[in-house]
Amino acid sequence: MTTPPNRAPGASPLRPAGLPAWNPPSPEARSRFQAALKPDSNGLVAAIAQAHGTGEVLMLAWMNAEAVEETLRTGRVTYYSRSRKGLWRKGETSGQVQHLIDLRLDCDGDALLATVHQDGVACHTGRRSCFSWGLAEEEVRPLEPVLADPAALYGSAG
Amino acid sequence: MTTPPNRAPGASPLRPAGLPAWNPPSPEARSRFQAALKPDSNGLVAAIAQAHGTGEVLMLAWMNAEAVEETLRTGRVTYYSRSRKGLWRKGETSGQVQHLIDLRLDCDGDALLATVHQDGVACHTGRRSCFSWGLAEEEVRPLEPVLADPAALYGSAG
Repeated sequence: MTTPPNRAPGASPLRPAGLPAWNPPSPEARSRFQAALKPDSNGLVAAIAQAHGTGEVLMLAWMNAEAVEETLRTGRVTYYSRSRKGLWRKGETSGQVQHLIDLRLDCDGDALLATVHQDGVACHTGRRSCFSWGLAEEEVRPLEPVLADPAALYGSAG
Repeated sequence: MTTPPNRAPGASPLRPAGLPAWNPPSPEARSRFQAALKPDSNGLVAAIAQAHGTGEVLMLAWMNAEAVEETLRTGRVTYYSRSRKGLWRKGETSGQVQHLIDLRLDCDGDALLATVHQDGVACHTGRRSCFSWGLAEEEVRPLEPVLADPAALYGSAG
């Protein structure tokens, strides 16, 4: 396993060359963005990640207010993990970071659409998109190729 | 308001010329598709609609098992309305029907991605996509134009 370059703990990963630096909205603008959200009874809004350029829908996850704030402030897409009950800085373990390009709200404020530059793959199975399963020959099957070895992405005792 | 052509009650709207007829999966295949879903405690999975061709993410809504079955059987995208607590055949009131092209599942079976041919606009505000709001000049504003008059889509006493 290669060692990533030294960075301050908690610092955002570098944006790839060619991707403009993230220009964070002001604290006031971020606060207005939060005020426009209508989280569910668990304090969450659904968040879709779509790949910049290709338009691929990569995944659907959840954000709480803290995740929205961190995403807008840092430009690194951060979700709320319902299973781990905490912030999920996408790519923290796997390196498959999502760099924010744009964040949109829907008409009733309970869902977000993040346009992102996806480093590598979005799916923990090593597929580019989590939406890779569908019907083929009467069976539910993965319809997209594995592009990255999950064991390499997440480490493996095996 | 123009009167739509006569059709049997409950019949699916005609697919636009040039769009191939929907070829429904067999009952067995539909049943396998359902078995691969992991609905939440309310029996729902999130469903994203993405426009065929352009890749626009149009909306996020919810489906229960009955909505998934009807969507796969008829090729007309049908959601579950949490506010009305019933099936929501998209476009039934507004005419802004979503014709199914493909339905994918995500890696953990709790979200769907429907590729659709959208008649007209997806958003009840008359915008093409529900994800039309974002920050501009420090404020949350609609960033996309109104393409259809909501009063004409839904009728209006005013």
